[in-house]
Amino acid sequence: MHRTKVRVVEGVLDANDTIARANRADFDRAGVAVVNLMSAPGAGKTSLLERVLADLGGVRAGVLEGDVQGSLDADRLTRFHVPVTQINTDPGFGGECHLDANMVRSALGDLPLEEIDLLVIENVGNLVCPAEFRVGEDVRVMVSSVTEGEDKPLKYPLMFRACELVLVNKVDLLPHLDFDLDRFLYHLDAVHPGVPRMLVSARTGEGVEGFRDWLLGVVAGGVAAGTVAPA
Amino acid sequence: MHRTKVRVVEGVLDANDTIARANRADFDRAGVAVVNLMSAPGAGKTSLLERVLADLGGVRAGVLEGDVQGSLDADRLTRFHVPVTQINTDPGFGGECHLDANMVRSALGDLPLEEIDLLVIENVGNLVCPAEFRVGEDVRVMVSSVTEGEDKPLKYPLMFRACELVLVNKVDLLPHLDFDLDRFLYHLDAVHPGVPRMLVSARTGEGVEGFRDWLLGVVAGGVAAGTVAPA
Repeated sequence: MHRTKVRVVEGVLDANDTIARANRADFDRAGVAVVNLMSAPGAGKTSLLERVLADLGGVRAGVLEGDVQGSLDADRLTRFHVPVTQINTDPGFGGECHLDANMVRSALGDLPLEEIDLLVIENVGNLVCPAEFRVGEDVRVMVSSVTEGEDKPLKYPLMFRACELVLVNKVDLLPHLDFDLDRFLYHLDAVHPGVPRMLVSARTGEGVEGFRDWLLGVVAGGVAAGTVAPA
Repeated sequence: MHRTKVRVVEGVLDANDTIARANRADFDRAGVAVVNLMSAPGAGKTSLLERVLADLGGVRAGVLEGDVQGSLDADRLTRFHVPVTQINTDPGFGGECHLDANMVRSALGDLPLEEIDLLVIENVGNLVCPAEFRVGEDVRVMVSSVTEGEDKPLKYPLMFRACELVLVNKVDLLPHLDFDLDRFLYHLDAVHPGVPRMLVSARTGEGVEGFRDWLLGVVAGGVAAGTVAPA
């Protein structure tokens, strides 16, 4: 007589998390620190990368660009002589509004992981779905532009929670806006108390040095997911 | 002897389009013109509505607000004494990054269709998925802020194609930006040749009158989906 086999399935990862862990294992094996960079469209992710890629000292960086279609951002970054790989979510993935772990995995073969120390994954511009999909990154950085208004943390709380650093970009425009920075930071702390934040301007370079140093800290292993340094 | 019945299924609508048509039939029966208003987060949809709702003459407007969570925008609009209904895509719909026809249908019972002439559906801030889901609207308007950069039509072509009017907002900031308006318009015409466009500033009110007149034209039946007036 046979006993019925019962498999009790607990805490099973969904498909995305399973693949994200596989990506993470590959990144760890190659010794690559990985940053998932997220924002609304036009908040300045690529412009900030242009600033920091020029000045990373001996750290070797690579970039994985996510866009619905085209390679405009990847083309902008090639002049920094870093390996840039483009993922288009449109032809192969049905016009998805975010990167997921499987899309990133499909690009792993094109990434020279053994030749880089830092991989920045620039996500599709969107404040909703990218926050829901881990891709195997160590840390997540989100960029919020002051032109988007003070209410954004309250309207897109998951995005502002699902990150280890918030870059408040385009601060050079503050004199020309009705943007109340204290109010924005109050809303930010309401959804993600104490999350590290930096005021930056990709246009003028203000504050970008701090972001670069933070990235170098990630490479050195001093910043990890879930850590919240004193603001 | 029975013949096998063969149903040849051609051009079947997907579920969303089927429901969108049902919504449209209800709107038509009530004599309500419906505008689907779309943009990236923080491009100024609500601020533009604040400008036009104050000044629609005898036309009675209502608003359906779509947000992942919260009712910040709906709360801003209640002072105009127009009926405002909030849809949150988070609790009931799993944090969706767009409105679809079924979500709009679920709110129809809360909308006083017999008491309004114009319904503005303010979509979730996102340049990807909202363009893929008809909700039963007559026309679609998208708002693109000059702070988002000249490349947006090329990066999110479906959104810029799937509309009858493009509002180029925040033009009061042009003197403070490296934004090349001609280049933006060139990209816009590359993806949607001749689409009507208006330069506006929700902050100063510049150009908003033109948008209001355009909305009144929609109510009067003079603007319909797919029509492209001379630019």
